Amino acid sequence: MTERLSQQFAFLLEAEKLKSVYRATPLADNSRRENSAEHSWTLALYALVLADQAGPGVDVNRAIRMLLLHDLVEIDVGDVPIHSSDGTAHGSADIQAAEAAAAERLFGLLPNDLRAELEATWHEFEAAQTPTAIFAKSLDRVQPVMLNLEGGGGSWLEYDVNWEQLESRVGAKVSHGLPAVWAWVQDRIRPWFTLRGR
Amino acid sequence: MTERLSQQFAFLLEAEKLKSVYRATPLADNSRRENSAEHSWTLALYALVLADQAGPGVDVNRAIRMLLLHDLVEIDVGDVPIHSSDGTAHGSADIQAAEAAAAERLFGLLPNDLRAELEATWHEFEAAQTPTAIFAKSLDRVQPVMLNLEGGGGSWLEYDVNWEQLESRVGAKVSHGLPAVWAWVQDRIRPWFTLRGR
Ligand SMILES: [Ca+2]
Repeated sequence: MTERLSQQFAFLLEAEKLKSVYRATPLADNSRRENSAEHSWTLALYALVLADQAGPGVDVNRAIRMLLLHDLVEIDVGDVPIHSSDGTAHGSADIQAAEAAAAERLFGLLPNDLRAELEATWHEFEAAQTPTAIFAKSLDRVQPVMLNLEGGGGSWLEYDVNWEQLESRVGAKVSHGLPAVWAWVQDRIRPWFTLRGR
Repeated sequence: MTERLSQQFAFLLEAEKLKSVYRATPLADNSRRENSAEHSWTLALYALVLADQAGPGVDVNRAIRMLLLHDLVEIDVGDVPIHSSDGTAHGSADIQAAEAAAAERLFGLLPNDLRAELEATWHEFEAAQTPTAIFAKSLDRVQPVMLNLEGGGGSWLEYDVNWEQLESRVGAKVSHGLPAVWAWVQDRIRPWFTLRGR
């Protein structure tokens, strides 16, 4: 019992490090970059608030669990911005292998039953095949778009992103799980790109 | 439909401000103070990982929802540290009234059905009467203890806290919902207080 609690707290304490992993996206007020812990909170809130946009077969509670866990591997690997290296780094085989190793180390801190449960949740998110994972992935892609727009450009400026790149790297994924949301977002961000000839 | 999405995103964008509300507790590495958004993420993760510590009648998914929402009112009111004003400010009638007004403003940004659902979740947490709310409140109290210990004292030093004050302001609440966890935590923090004659 005491040994079990020690393992649970070893994991929870290790997870604290996610607060020091910073992302490419600025906060909405542009005061600093967003970190991956607060990003994960925002996504869980997105799932709660946009639950009515979830398609058939989506388990919103499970999506929330996925979103709480999905970035923990960045404690070892760091955040790989979606627009970095011309859009090729994110999701590359090297990064995927490093993230799988990080998942093994981090979830390996837990008691076996919990490890199996949380690792399976994380793998389901990564594989992006189930309705729940597709919904969660779409939320993960759309929130930075809102921050970039609010923050005056954010990582679109940093990585010189144009409309076509945004559509292929982000829009295609968001509209897969949240078609009505992407249509709504497009109307709001299009002017930013048009105005800058991107 | 479009009007509904606009309300949902107005709320989500307002919620971003929680990332700029800083708490009395330092991060585990003592590099800066924790903000209330990343704190909320940590608590949801605590609920997930310590689910086996939940007593009868606890709905862990609902506890996670409570913890995601519980600090949003700090966008208007700020964080009131548990040990500030000799332990009397937190939970005072003034603060409670201000937080209720904040909840009305913030959840009022949402469509009516969602507003009712999320406001009820927040009120249940605040009232701390149901098993689920008691579990969630206990998690909210115990996580800063772990951060203070890791960070070398944190808000215990800032507010000159002794063992008796910690037991009455924090321990009593944590052991209400998580008795085995508080027993485990006591063993780990007692030396910090003994060593300093507190
Ligand atoms: Ca709090």
